[in-house]
Amino acid sequence: MPLVKKPVTGMKDILPEEMQIRDYVINVIKETYRSFGFTPIDTPCMENIANLCSKQGGENEKLIFKVLKRGEKLKLEEAKSEADLTDMGLRYDLTLPLARFYSNNANNLPSPFKALQIGSVWRADRPQRGRYRQFTQCDIDILGEPSNLAEIELILATTTTLGKLGFSNFEIRINEREILKAMAAYSGFPEDDYESIFITLDKMDKIGLEGVAEELEKNGFEKESVETYLNLFAKTEGTEDGREAIALLAEELGSFLPEEIRKNLTMIIDSVEQTKTADFKMVFDPTLVRGMGYYTGTIFEIAIPEFGGSCGGGGRYDKMIGNFTGNPVPACGFSIGFERIILLLLEQGFQIPTQPKKTAYLIEKKYPADKLCEVIEKAQKARESGRQVLIVRMNKNKKFQKEKLAAEGYEEFEEFFCR
Amino acid sequence: MPLVKKPVTGMKDILPEEMQIRDYVINVIKETYRSFGFTPIDTPCMENIANLCSKQGGENEKLIFKVLKRGEKLKLEEAKSEADLTDMGLRYDLTLPLARFYSNNANNLPSPFKALQIGSVWRADRPQRGRYRQFTQCDIDILGEPSNLAEIELILATTTTLGKLGFSNFEIRINEREILKAMAAYSGFPEDDYESIFITLDKMDKIGLEGVAEELEKNGFEKESVETYLNLFAKTEGTEDGREAIALLAEELGSFLPEEIRKNLTMIIDSVEQTKTADFKMVFDPTLVRGMGYYTGTIFEIAIPEFGGSCGGGGRYDKMIGNFTGNPVPACGFSIGFERIILLLLEQGFQIPTQPKKTAYLIEKKYPADKLCEVIEKAQKARESGRQVLIVRMNKNKKFQKEKLAAEGYEEFEEFFCR
Repeated sequence: MPLVKKPVTGMKDILPEEMQIRDYVINVIKETYRSFGFTPIDTPCMENIANLCSKQGGENEKLIFKVLKRGEKLKLEEAKSEADLTDMGLRYDLTLPLARFYSNNANNLPSPFKALQIGSVWRADRPQRGRYRQFTQCDIDILGEPSNLAEIELILATTTTLGKLGFSNFEIRINEREILKAMAAYSGFPEDDYESIFITLDKMDKIGLEGVAEELEKNGFEKESVETYLNLFAKTEGTEDGREAIALLAEELGSFLPEEIRKNLTMIIDSVEQTKTADFKMVFDPTLVRGMGYYTGTIFEIAIPEFGGSCGGGGRYDKMIGNFTGNPVPACGFSIGFERIILLLLEQGFQIPTQPKKTAYLIEKKYPADKLCEVIEKAQKARESGRQVLIVRMNKNKKFQKEKLAAEGYEEFEEFFCR
Repeated sequence: MPLVKKPVTGMKDILPEEMQIRDYVINVIKETYRSFGFTPIDTPCMENIANLCSKQGGENEKLIFKVLKRGEKLKLEEAKSEADLTDMGLRYDLTLPLARFYSNNANNLPSPFKALQIGSVWRADRPQRGRYRQFTQCDIDILGEPSNLAEIELILATTTTLGKLGFSNFEIRINEREILKAMAAYSGFPEDDYESIFITLDKMDKIGLEGVAEELEKNGFEKESVETYLNLFAKTEGTEDGREAIALLAEELGSFLPEEIRKNLTMIIDSVEQTKTADFKMVFDPTLVRGMGYYTGTIFEIAIPEFGGSCGGGGRYDKMIGNFTGNPVPACGFSIGFERIILLLLEQGFQIPTQPKKTAYLIEKKYPADKLCEVIEKAQKARESGRQVLIVRMNKNKKFQKEKLAAEGYEEFEEFFCR
């Protein structure tokens, strides 16, 4: 078989220019999240196939890269379906592995546990511009904190990080599964159909509120219910302040919405607005759904004006860990849209603020061996003092060589000749 | 299927304590390597199966985790062998992906290109203490530099890094494929059997020189040749200075060893000894083989006294890139034994030298919502000034809670009560 130069379908090589920015962003993320008391952890990239296919990953479960069984375990002749060939797969997110990690290690972890994970995940999506089958996720989660202190800290940590990366004028949109449910109940939809209704509502971005109404009617829901539902969304339109918007909606929903839900969400918006360090706004968005089936309470999303869609999100998932241990543990997480942020920074021609000075030593091709040591020694001293020093052989076309080095960020040149 | 709490066989969860040290070591590695002008790159964790199984990975090719074909490509009923089921696999090292990367992107890369890669690799080894099926590799490579400037810079960069991590009194053992060959030729072994002889010699660590002699005789080699071979190794024994040892051996080998090989190796040892910043010794080791079939010239290894075996290694592989492009490109690399270094630091109870101050705010359970903002605001200011601040609810057993936090490194505590 001939060797293949290209990366495998849908995945990409990362060149120095992008890699430098990725490393810088990861450092800012880590440093900021650490200042909030989040501690880094890591899990294997592969998980047991039973965990990956446990109906907690929604559509992502269809996109799993499965790993072939090895040795005696692989019985090709007896295999009747894919399931017989594989017992592990590559993770499609970092949340399920975190729930497994916590179940496995809770005794050795602080409570509440504030986890930071940065790692690759894999999804066999149809390849398209800017979306790859391997990409980096960057999650913070607070496990064991039932109060909204979790939501407040997650939102503050994430937005502080975005601020440090130079983003401003963005929005954090927030909603609650209980509000979604209360609105559906108020409108008279049958409880068993809530999930189906939310799936339709989730298409708002693409088809608009009218499109949502059309699809709901097409799916056989009562025209009256659909109208009531639509009118509810109109209630908060134009109300800029999230707290006011929630109050308006809550008034309309009356006893359909438990008072504590309104209070809780209002307090989150209030606390974040009062203590935020970045330039952004908390927005109440009753149309926000978030696809994953595992959310149980608050849900939130980052909207950066330069982007169409969401640039990260998260929410509360109080039941997932219980699926492993039998004992539910309150859990809340926020995932930053790492790849989108990198894409945006690259498009904006982002420059890393502080870099060490870069010097290139150009050495004539036949520079004598015994004198080379002196050059290396000089470089070693400069490196120890914090400089970046590249030692290269001088090319015939020295001018061109220096131009290329300058493009790589080398500002200073020293030349070493035979005589 | 029930959910599984444990990580998949042979792989491990990484807890905060270890993760902190890993992050610290990675930062030291990156910073030091960057000061030598190495630039980070990344490649996908999966590679085309044709590349992975191209006989360049030696024994590692037997340990590949293969990924199941997806959708229409998977024709289970027609599949006759493993090869029909899979078109990608997880990488078993970073060298082959680098050669592919370079072949794919050479036009957009400087020449010579100094690459730094840190990433996970996977090998389905039999699980054993301290060895895992997923582990981190950390490689530097110089592509396009034919002279021994590559070897010198690789060894200096790696040893400077080890020095910064607190290692001292270690050795870099060096040898040359051409010396291995010259010794075999001098002893009268048939040229076709060299590789088999080197495989036996590679077992020196485990079976000793006598064991090597026994195995060679058992494999049918002439007793006389084996004796001559053994006597050659005796020549350099007890000679501490690598340059002297090479001179002694070269004198014995006479015309079997090209003069330029001796000169080249001597110059590498000389230059490193004169310009090194860490506390280590260059040692010439004529028994050093290094398993991988792709090495073409110098080979080297790190020996840290606290360890039995090698703690990283590398060498020159001038032919691998040519396998992709048809045009060979001189290449030389050094891989640091990341996992072993972490293991050693953990065993030594390594303390990270500089850490931000860690403060914990303990808040009474029923602390009023409106006053919580003041606490968060205070935390936000402290975080901005470089502190690490954790906000947690106060437990009933506050003393125990503080002891646990102290064990996590929290030195300062502030308590917030309702009144």
